[in-house]
Amino acid sequence: MQTLPGFRDFYPADCAARRCVFDTWREVARRYGFVEMDGPTLEPVELYKKKSGGELVGQLFDFVDKGERHVALRPEMTPTLARMVAAKEREFKKPLKWFSIANYFRYEKQQKGRLREFTQLNCDLIGEASPAADAEMIALAIDLMRGFGLGAEDFVVRVNDRNAWMQFLAARNIAAERAPDFLQIIDKLEREEPGVTTKKLADYNLTRVELDDFLARPPAELGGALGPLAADLEARGLREFVEFDPKIVRGLAYYTGVVFEIFDRPRKFRALAGGGRYDNLIATLSDNAVDLPALGFAVGDVVLLELLRALPHTAAKLAAATRAAGSPELYVVIADETFRPQALGLIRALRDAGRRVDFSLTAAKVGKQFQTAETLGATHAVVLGAEWPQVKLKTLATRAEETLSHIELPARLSRSNAAARAT
Amino acid sequence: MQTLPGFRDFYPADCAARRCVFDTWREVARRYGFVEMDGPTLEPVELYKKKSGGELVGQLFDFVDKGERHVALRPEMTPTLARMVAAKEREFKKPLKWFSIANYFRYEKQQKGRLREFTQLNCDLIGEASPAADAEMIALAIDLMRGFGLGAEDFVVRVNDRNAWMQFLAARNIAAERAPDFLQIIDKLEREEPGVTTKKLADYNLTRVELDDFLARPPAELGGALGPLAADLEARGLREFVEFDPKIVRGLAYYTGVVFEIFDRPRKFRALAGGGRYDNLIATLSDNAVDLPALGFAVGDVVLLELLRALPHTAAKLAAATRAAGSPELYVVIADETFRPQALGLIRALRDAGRRVDFSLTAAKVGKQFQTAETLGATHAVVLGAEWPQVKLKTLATRAEETLSHIELPARLSRSNAAARAT
Repeated sequence: MQTLPGFRDFYPADCAARRCVFDTWREVARRYGFVEMDGPTLEPVELYKKKSGGELVGQLFDFVDKGERHVALRPEMTPTLARMVAAKEREFKKPLKWFSIANYFRYEKQQKGRLREFTQLNCDLIGEASPAADAEMIALAIDLMRGFGLGAEDFVVRVNDRNAWMQFLAARNIAAERAPDFLQIIDKLEREEPGVTTKKLADYNLTRVELDDFLARPPAELGGALGPLAADLEARGLREFVEFDPKIVRGLAYYTGVVFEIFDRPRKFRALAGGGRYDNLIATLSDNAVDLPALGFAVGDVVLLELLRALPHTAAKLAAATRAAGSPELYVVIADETFRPQALGLIRALRDAGRRVDFSLTAAKVGKQFQTAETLGATHAVVLGAEWPQVKLKTLATRAEETLSHIELPARLSRSNAAARAT
Repeated sequence: MQTLPGFRDFYPADCAARRCVFDTWREVARRYGFVEMDGPTLEPVELYKKKSGGELVGQLFDFVDKGERHVALRPEMTPTLARMVAAKEREFKKPLKWFSIANYFRYEKQQKGRLREFTQLNCDLIGEASPAADAEMIALAIDLMRGFGLGAEDFVVRVNDRNAWMQFLAARNIAAERAPDFLQIIDKLEREEPGVTTKKLADYNLTRVELDDFLARPPAELGGALGPLAADLEARGLREFVEFDPKIVRGLAYYTGVVFEIFDRPRKFRALAGGGRYDNLIATLSDNAVDLPALGFAVGDVVLLELLRALPHTAAKLAAATRAAGSPELYVVIADETFRPQALGLIRALRDAGRRVDFSLTAAKVGKQFQTAETLGATHAVVLGAEWPQVKLKTLATRAEETLSHIELPARLSRSNAAARAT
C-alpha cells in the first residue's frame, strides 16, 4: 500500500530535518515577541468560500461529514486567524503578534516544490497600520532565513506596496475600480509578450515608456509606504536583503498595501515565502463589526528544505542537526548479564538526569554492543560488569576511557559536556 | 462563524500549554533513544479497513477526493507506521524505537475527554520480542507522566499479558479460538451484573471462584511475560507505578501479548494512555512478507491536559511555562523618538544575539511603554534616548537600574541571566 500522491512519509532523518526547520522558525519568531496559536485542521467550507478566492477554493479537500456538514481541510491559516481575532479581540493587547506552524492541504497538480499536504509558518501582526509594522514583519522574514545560515547572497526579499500603484493610477485620473484589472497586467509583465502588454496599457492611455519610468524610481519616490519602509530597514542594517520592485503585486484578492515575496537569488526555486497587508479581511470575516488593520506572511517547508539541501553550507548544518537528533548520548554496554538489574537501575538514574541513553534489551556480545553504540552515533559508552559498583566510561571518538564509581557518573558527564561546550 | 463541534481553537495560552506537553513528550522519548517520525494526515481508507477494526472504521472522517480516491483522515498512527516499517525495514537497525506527535480525527460523540481532532504521542518499539522490550516501553510511559511532575500518588499503570489468559485457557483445555469471546467477558467484568458473568463462565465450564482465584495471583504466577516484566521494573525502581491486573485486556483486535493502560489514581478521568504488543500486525499490513514483533502505546493531549490542570502542583508548572512562552525577555523603551533609528539597530543586535525583544512600533509616552512591558511580562526594559550611546537597563521586578553603553548590553544580559540561573 502506498501513500496518496502529494503526501509524504517522514522517516526519522526527514522528520529530524523538518524538526530543525520548525525549531528555527519558532525560536526566531519568539525573538520578535511573537506568540504561538493554532486552529482546527478541519473548518466549515464557507470560511474559505467567503474569502480565499477562486484558485484556493478550486483546490479544497472538501466533503460532507457524518453530521451532514460541508467541511474542508484548511488550505491556509488566514481565515481561521481572522475568525479567532474577531471573536476575542478585546481580550488581547494590540498589536497582536501571533505565529503558527501547521499543516495545510491543497489539491494541486503534482510538481517540484508543490505537494498536497505541506507545513507553513504563518506570522501575523494585527492592529497596527503604521509602515513600522510592515518593516517589523519584513525584518522577521529576513531573520527567519538568516536563522538557517542563509545570507544576502542566497536570498532576496522583493517588496512593493499596492498603494504605490493606486497613487500612480490616481495621478493619471484612472478610476480605482479599474485597479484589479490593471494589476493583472503588472503581475504578468515578466511572462507576457511585450507587444501584448503595450496593447493592454493603451486601454489605460498609458505607454510602456511611462510604465518603465515608474518602475525605475527609487523606493522613496514610488509612493505608498515604501519610503518609510526602506528607511526603517536601513536603520536595522537589513537593507541589503531587500529589493523594492513594483512588479510584485501577488495574486490573492485580499491584499491592500505592502506585499512581498522571498526568492533564492539565482531564482532556481519557487517563492520561499510571501505575504502582505490585508487591512479589510478581519472586518469581512467578523460577525461583530471588528475592524483591525493586519498583515502577515507564510513560509512553507517544501521549497525551503529543497533550498537548504541544495546549498552546501546549509546542507551541512541540516545534516549535523539531523544526525544529532537521531543519536543517544550514552550507550550502556552490559559486559556481564549477571549485572543487568544494576544496569537497569543505572540507566534509569541517567535518564532521570536528562541523559539520552540506549542499551541492548537482550544479551549480546560486548563487541556487538559497541558496534551498535557506534552505529547509533552515541558519544560515550558506559561499560558495566564484574567491577560493579565501578564502571568504565569510554569516549567513543577518542577511545579514551576511565574507571569510576557509577555514583559519580552523572556529575562526571556534566563536567565532560561543559568542557566540550567550552572548547 | 464557529469552529466545528469537537474541534478546537488554540489561542496563545492554550497553545503554550499544549506546546509544554509536546516538548516534555519529545524530551522524555529522546532520553529513551526514540527518534521522531511522521506520516501523512490523509491515507487511503483501505489502510484502516484492513486492520483498525469495527469501532474506528465507523468513526472515520472519510470521503472521495477530486481524483476519485476513497481517503480518510488518520484516526491512529499504527497502520501508517506498520506500512512504513514494512516498506523499508532493511534500512534500519533493529529494534526500531520510533515516536510521533501528530493529530488524529475520529467522528465521536462529544463528551468530556473526547474530541474529534486531538493530538497523540505514539511510541513504538519494533523488532524485539523479549519482555525486556515491554518493560522498556512501560518504563517510558511512566517517565512520560513523571516528566510533568506526576508521582505514584497521581497515576498508575495497569498491566496485563493476554498470553496469561491463553495459558489459563490452555490449562483448562479450552480451545484458543474461543479466546476472543472469553476476553470479552473479562473486559466487561467490572461493569456487568455478577450473575450474568457467572452464567457466561459456565459456557466454559468455569466458576467465578476459579476466576477470582486466578485474578488474585501475584504477577510471576499469572504466566505470560508478567514475571520477567515485574522483575525488570523492580530493578529500575519503577515497581510502585505499576499494578498487574489480569482484567486489563483492551478492545483493539490486534493486541497479542502485554497490554497496559494508565489512569489517574482516583479514576476521575478517562484513560491517560494505552497500548500493548501487536506482534502480527506488521506482517498483516506488509506487501513483502516482512514479519516483526512490535509493541506501542499512545498518550493523548486531551485527558492529560485535563489532569494537569486539575492537580495543583502540575497546574502551577503548566501556568509558569505558559507565562514564560508568551513573554519577551526585553522591552526596548524609546524615550526620545529622534533615536528610533538607533533603537531599531540595537533591537536587531539583541535579537541577533538570541534575545526575545519587543518594542512599540509607533511613538508612545514612556509611561505607556513601561506599562506594555509589564503587561507582556518582560523581565527587563532597556531605555534609550538622549543619553545615547548610553542606555538604561532596568530590572522590572526590582526596579533596579543601571546605565551602560549599548555595546556592553548583550554581554551584560548574559551575565545577568547566568547569575539568575545560578541562584
